[in-house]
Amino acid sequence: MAPEYLVKIDLNKPAYEQEGVHNRWHPDIPAYKTISQNKSYKIECFDWTGGQVGNNDSADDIKYADLTRIHYLSGPFSVEGCEPGDVLKVQLQDVQPLERQPWGYCGIFAKENGGGFLDKHYPKAAKAIFDFEGIYCTSRHIPGVKFPGICHPGIIGVAPSHDVLKEWNTRESQLVNENPDADFVMANLPNDKGVFAGTKASKEVIESVKFNGARTIPGRPENGGNCDIKALTRGSVVYLPTYLPGGLLSIGDLHFSQGDGEISFCGAIEMAGCVTFEVSVIKNGMEKLNMKSPMYLPSNVEPTFGPDRYLTFEGFSVNEEGKQLCLDTTVAYRQTCLRVIEYLRRFGYNDYQIYLLLSTAPIQGHIAGIVDVPNSCTTIGLPMDIFEFDISPEAEVQKKDMGNCAFATDDLEEGFPLTDELANKFLDIIKSTRGCGH
Amino acid sequence: MAPEYLVKIDLNKPAYEQEGVHNRWHPDIPAYKTISQNKSYKIECFDWTGGQVGNNDSADDIKYADLTRIHYLSGPFSVEGCEPGDVLKVQLQDVQPLERQPWGYCGIFAKENGGGFLDKHYPKAAKAIFDFEGIYCTSRHIPGVKFPGICHPGIIGVAPSHDVLKEWNTRESQLVNENPDADFVMANLPNDKGVFAGTKASKEVIESVKFNGARTIPGRPENGGNCDIKALTRGSVVYLPTYLPGGLLSIGDLHFSQGDGEISFCGAIEMAGCVTFEVSVIKNGMEKLNMKSPMYLPSNVEPTFGPDRYLTFEGFSVNEEGKQLCLDTTVAYRQTCLRVIEYLRRFGYNDYQIYLLLSTAPIQGHIAGIVDVPNSCTTIGLPMDIFEFDISPEAEVQKKDMGNCAFATDDLEEGFPLTDELANKFLDIIKSTRGCGH
Amino acid sequence: MAPEYLVKIDLNKPAYEQEGVHNRWHPDIPAYKTISQNKSYKIECFDWTGGQVGNNDSADDIKYADLTRIHYLSGPFSVEGCEPGDVLKVQLQDVQPLERQPWGYCGIFAKENGGGFLDKHYPKAAKAIFDFEGIYCTSRHIPGVKFPGICHPGIIGVAPSHDVLKEWNTRESQLVNENPDADFVMANLPNDKGVFAGTKASKEVIESVKFNGARTIPGRPENGGNCDIKALTRGSVVYLPTYLPGGLLSIGDLHFSQGDGEISFCGAIEMAGCVTFEVSVIKNGMEKLNMKSPMYLPSNVEPTFGPDRYLTFEGFSVNEEGKQLCLDTTVAYRQTCLRVIEYLRRFGYNDYQIYLLLSTAPIQGHIAGIVDVPNSCTTIGLPMDIFEFDISPEAEVQKKDMGNCAFATDDLEEGFPLTDELANKFLDIIKSTRGCGH
Amino acid sequence: MAPEYLVKIDLNKPAYEQEGVHNRWHPDIPAYKTISQNKSYKIECFDWTGGQVGNNDSADDIKYADLTRIHYLSGPFSVEGCEPGDVLKVQLQDVQPLERQPWGYCGIFAKENGGGFLDKHYPKAAKAIFDFEGIYCTSRHIPGVKFPGICHPGIIGVAPSHDVLKEWNTRESQLVNENPDADFVMANLPNDKGVFAGTKASKEVIESVKFNGARTIPGRPENGGNCDIKALTRGSVVYLPTYLPGGLLSIGDLHFSQGDGEISFCGAIEMAGCVTFEVSVIKNGMEKLNMKSPMYLPSNVEPTFGPDRYLTFEGFSVNEEGKQLCLDTTVAYRQTCLRVIEYLRRFGYNDYQIYLLLSTAPIQGHIAGIVDVPNSCTTIGLPMDIFEFDISPEAEVQKKDMGNCAFATDDLEEGFPLTDELANKFLDIIKSTRGCGH
Repeated sequence: MAPEYLVKIDLNKPAYEQEGVHNRWHPDIPAYKTISQNKSYKIECFDWTGGQVGNNDSADDIKYADLTRIHYLSGPFSVEGCEPGDVLKVQLQDVQPLERQPWGYCGIFAKENGGGFLDKHYPKAAKAIFDFEGIYCTSRHIPGVKFPGICHPGIIGVAPSHDVLKEWNTRESQLVNENPDADFVMANLPNDKGVFAGTKASKEVIESVKFNGARTIPGRPENGGNCDIKALTRGSVVYLPTYLPGGLLSIGDLHFSQGDGEISFCGAIEMAGCVTFEVSVIKNGMEKLNMKSPMYLPSNVEPTFGPDRYLTFEGFSVNEEGKQLCLDTTVAYRQTCLRVIEYLRRFGYNDYQIYLLLSTAPIQGHIAGIVDVPNSCTTIGLPMDIFEFDISPEAEVQKKDMGNCAFATDDLEEGFPLTDELANKFLDIIKSTRGCGH
Repeated sequence: MAPEYLVKIDLNKPAYEQEGVHNRWHPDIPAYKTISQNKSYKIECFDWTGGQVGNNDSADDIKYADLTRIHYLSGPFSVEGCEPGDVLKVQLQDVQPLERQPWGYCGIFAKENGGGFLDKHYPKAAKAIFDFEGIYCTSRHIPGVKFPGICHPGIIGVAPSHDVLKEWNTRESQLVNENPDADFVMANLPNDKGVFAGTKASKEVIESVKFNGARTIPGRPENGGNCDIKALTRGSVVYLPTYLPGGLLSIGDLHFSQGDGEISFCGAIEMAGCVTFEVSVIKNGMEKLNMKSPMYLPSNVEPTFGPDRYLTFEGFSVNEEGKQLCLDTTVAYRQTCLRVIEYLRRFGYNDYQIYLLLSTAPIQGHIAGIVDVPNSCTTIGLPMDIFEFDISPEAEVQKKDMGNCAFATDDLEEGFPLTDELANKFLDIIKSTRGCGH
Repeated sequence: MAPEYLVKIDLNKPAYEQEGVHNRWHPDIPAYKTISQNKSYKIECFDWTGGQVGNNDSADDIKYADLTRIHYLSGPFSVEGCEPGDVLKVQLQDVQPLERQPWGYCGIFAKENGGGFLDKHYPKAAKAIFDFEGIYCTSRHIPGVKFPGICHPGIIGVAPSHDVLKEWNTRESQLVNENPDADFVMANLPNDKGVFAGTKASKEVIESVKFNGARTIPGRPENGGNCDIKALTRGSVVYLPTYLPGGLLSIGDLHFSQGDGEISFCGAIEMAGCVTFEVSVIKNGMEKLNMKSPMYLPSNVEPTFGPDRYLTFEGFSVNEEGKQLCLDTTVAYRQTCLRVIEYLRRFGYNDYQIYLLLSTAPIQGHIAGIVDVPNSCTTIGLPMDIFEFDISPEAEVQKKDMGNCAFATDDLEEGFPLTDELANKFLDIIKSTRGCGH
Repeated sequence: MAPEYLVKIDLNKPAYEQEGVHNRWHPDIPAYKTISQNKSYKIECFDWTGGQVGNNDSADDIKYADLTRIHYLSGPFSVEGCEPGDVLKVQLQDVQPLERQPWGYCGIFAKENGGGFLDKHYPKAAKAIFDFEGIYCTSRHIPGVKFPGICHPGIIGVAPSHDVLKEWNTRESQLVNENPDADFVMANLPNDKGVFAGTKASKEVIESVKFNGARTIPGRPENGGNCDIKALTRGSVVYLPTYLPGGLLSIGDLHFSQGDGEISFCGAIEMAGCVTFEVSVIKNGMEKLNMKSPMYLPSNVEPTFGPDRYLTFEGFSVNEEGKQLCLDTTVAYRQTCLRVIEYLRRFGYNDYQIYLLLSTAPIQGHIAGIVDVPNSCTTIGLPMDIFEFDISPEAEVQKKDMGNCAFATDDLEEGFPLTDELANKFLDIIKSTRGCGH
């Protein structure tokens, strides 16, 4: 018997008019449907922006994307027999793009609108469209590259209890409050703008979600959520702690492919798609497994490049200015990214193209050494076989015309770096879309 | 023709009396031998402490290990035809324990003597001995576990030029100077104690090395060094930038096995062993490859567990006190380690045993998401097949008597946590062995 | 842009009434469509019987299947720019079951109707239905087993030239003629019964195909065809020699999964499905590559069990009666199959169930030694992880009730072994469906 | 504690003068030593010829090799606690070449002296020497190729009981007797020439072994023996049925590397070496596991090329003369070998070099389809990454000077094909070394 569809979406209507989706974490958002254990279901899911981004050659839609209206997750689903303290076991039986929309995109957010891992170096918005052909994708914005997808949901998680929610809002507000002079948004706090609590929420619930519904951007230890773990691909099994009757599972933010780190923030190949899954429950699992955060078993149907086909780069916690930091693994990983960009630049790609490639291709980001003071060392394994030409260190380099990725209209006109005026224009647009520390 | 031995070591004499080894990075340490390109050589290497640690059931040797007398590297070797700016390509054709010493150890350093990644939780010294049987190891201190080694040198690197050396000393001193109140040693600066510049160094050279010879503890972006990258196993190929005529290659700090992060600091299965290798040179490679830091190709002869045989744990940048940090990947990885410890504790292991296991078994440490403010997310994949019993979430747990790892005599007598008096005793011993910011 | 569909099928109408399919190899069957190089296309394909087999619990449809009406291949497709002597490179970008028919079947043919690799031991018809849930399948007829599919076309090939066709018919007739007393059908020769030359064939062509159109059952060295190579899964690249203008490519006989050997003949999980593919041409490739038979590159997105998760059985060329044969690899492989059956029988499966499982699960069949007279040695690697319980040699065996596979009504009534009468009944049905050596 | 050495060999003395080895299977050959369960041991082993072949550039030693004096196996070892009907579980913890002899060889036997899989095409003797550098090998006789070894014993097995021995001799004699006109040796029967029953055998035992001791050339279903399974590499676990008290285990015929089929007969990289192993016993295992032939678990430390890095060739049961055979898998595999030879010939290798390469490199030989009458289909996967140049179908081919392998002096003088006179000369030499059907 064919798996039942729990959610179907209409790509021609706004996400916030549709059934079976929501965009905040909150205990009171009502379950959309109840599902049985050990039964296969299908759900369609929006791309993370709910359709804000088009298949075109401009990054305007990325530049002005509204971050209060994102992550329309399919769900919540109440699982029969699941009680607080149980562990929900979800087998992702398949993750596919929608046949009716065989493309996705990767975006670099402008520094002023969320930025990304390398925004100090690459502050402007950019975009690449990827076309899907079976399990492969190519991009007219990054020629010479082709790879099989490792499709996965960027977000899978359960609703928090009221206690858990309070904990989140408290600790994230505290971070913001303790860093009043941060030059970037350190955390996205609850914000009534753009809230969508599904079609079944009462007025009271909607007000409550507007007031303290947790934003979906960070993954969190208690419920997983937006972890952007590329390994959660078809065939993987995820174990989630639960806090509420029914568990209240939601899934969304599908990616066709992603590299470890999802470094450009809108950093996978974002897509609308369909997930086939099955759930079961480990009774009293949180205590039994002594579990505080999700765990998972990867799939055995990932793309398998030979280990020696990964050209691997090292990075250390000495930053771009040559300043020594002490065991700062985040800095080390940024350095590793820069080393790859410097290397690939020689083949004719510009840095934005490589930044987009590092975000989307199945690169392996490892923590190598994390104890030899003062240097953390991280590595990035770049699969050489995704390139149509030889990129090994021994190869003869021929710099080619690699075209360009998409940029925003303003940026093309006004040149780089961003003028103050332009930056302010951004800020006006964006200011209202962020949370404030209430 | 059998590969020529460049260095043979005597395990019954102190390392600092022997030919072909040294324990600082310095441009003036004379090459021990000159080697040809495209020719296979063998070198024997000491364990990182040069024999300070014994095959016994006490961690006293770990507790009082002298960190100024470590990392006796085999070399330096001058490569025919290698000039500054060239890239040295080293193929590690084999890495093996010495047949005459078929065991190794993993240590947890006391917090007062270097500590480790989890020293706040596990401050005392501990040790586990591992016995080698062919490609496998087992430990009487961590029963129920058996795994194939992924033997590799913790250190492979070239000598710095005087300019590079100056850069190192400057930036690392600066870190120390800027953090006068740090409660741990942030960087090990040059220290004349314990210096060994090889047997060929003139008095002037020895003085120079004592004065500003770089310590070997951190890996560094310019020359690699102590990166503790478990992937540099037999069959891997390492590309190193060079700064001096002949390149001056050194190799040492062999590990039988290690997990990503080498988290307990003395954190691999440390061993004496033998490396078979071959070098060649990419002329003007630093410019040609646009290379600032080493890169490598892993081996295709690593142990291959099925992807779905790694039980994988998630950790986030919310620390043990529940405090939210912003994209702190180091904290996220520490949390991930703690999640594994909590999980494995159920089977009867104590936390120190698991800490030692996480350091030595081939766990996979990945950066998952590094952009979703404020949470970095990292993962640890634990290969389930190294356990003699089923550790999957579905398994029935039977808590067993798992014995214990080795502790130091003092600690056993005096109990935990460390008294102030005991801590001071340590500090007296250790104080003089650290560098000071000259 | 979404790949164009070249063929769509209607599962509710007979295959031989539909456009874009045919069931013989013949140079004169007109191309159904012309396709471009380097462009992605989709085709729907029938299951190999064109819908003769139902999702039910009887093997009657298997027992009386008409082998003249099988292998309705989608095509032929004429490739722009392809000329005789060129090599056609086909990338299989995806192979999927039809969403509207999420199940497949495996059949054991009765000895009288084609039989299978073990028909001497297991002469009766049997069947197992497999349900698809995402990338996984399970079978109510073989409980306790679940595995990811390795979907592939059993048949991919090009049309023969008249010369090649003549060669086929000559050599296969000769085999039949030289073995007049064979107790099984050694080759299926041209047969006018059941011929379907597509909807575009003229009367003359139809007559010609009836007269000498090659049957599709064997794969052949010249054009590949029915090779039943499980490695031709999504992501693989096949290189085919060509003999006619346009190449004339056909694809069909889709399998959800199969073990090496496809031992039960109807031996994979047979399904209707959809193939996404792209072609290009290597001009004069047959001479350039010195190519006589197809070659391919497997996909890097196959299921990857750890190597040590395959319990592997050995078989030798000593047959069931203990008779020694000289380097007979076919006998060795049969012995290997029997060893697996004897092993798995202990868990409660009956032999027919295991026979079906060996046909469908991704078992690895290797040639181990083929020179040590008089024994060929072959091996079968059985992935232990497809079982829901531990099948390792160390496991405690608990014989369970494993239900049964489907059998034919007659067989259930009449018992085993087959009576002469029953066998004759079969033969009457089947006699007319075989070719005769004209 | 270091594993104890059970057998050490002297490479400078004849094998048949040394302790701890023997070259026939017979129940009465006394155990050389008794070993404990769950304890690690080491044994040194001769190359299969006991040192008949030299590291030189002539194949004379191959041409005139005496096949009665081969397979000097280390053992037999009696296992404490092992009784008839038990299953002996042997973990191969390591297999290594001897450090004092870092080379091996592959030979093609002349058609008159055993020949090999392709002897009809390549009837003369040839040889290639391989040098070992760490885990890699290269050959001056086959330039442009380098690969990691997958070291394994070609032979591992237990002694037969008298009943089993009788069964062997009966069925193999019968084969010979039923084929009096065979133009090659179909089976090597007991032969008193060259018998070595170890140093502990009494006169009576020696006579008995001379009379009916089974030759070691074929692997056999009852005890494994000379299976030449490349997967029995370090880390694998072999399960052997036993027939005598103590089991009486013997191991030998070590290979540095081998392709599936070991097609040139002396067809692996033959070497002297050292095996580290451990045994345990499954009581009453033959009945418990329903076991008639050995089984094994491969190692997870094999070389891992990416699946898409194997260029794979297809072969069918249509022989070189174009004759159709019915499901003859041996013929199909021979055809597959020929397809690879034709392909690689384009790069400048001669056919004998490729034949040697196919024997030694880790090629994957699979049974693809074995039921589609009349064609068996087999495949060979050739790892492209063992070549120093690109061999993919898309590569530009540059025919290079690839030198030559070693041939025998006579052959070089007298040219090919072999004259009748030369062939007779061989036969005189060889005649007496074969068994006769007593």
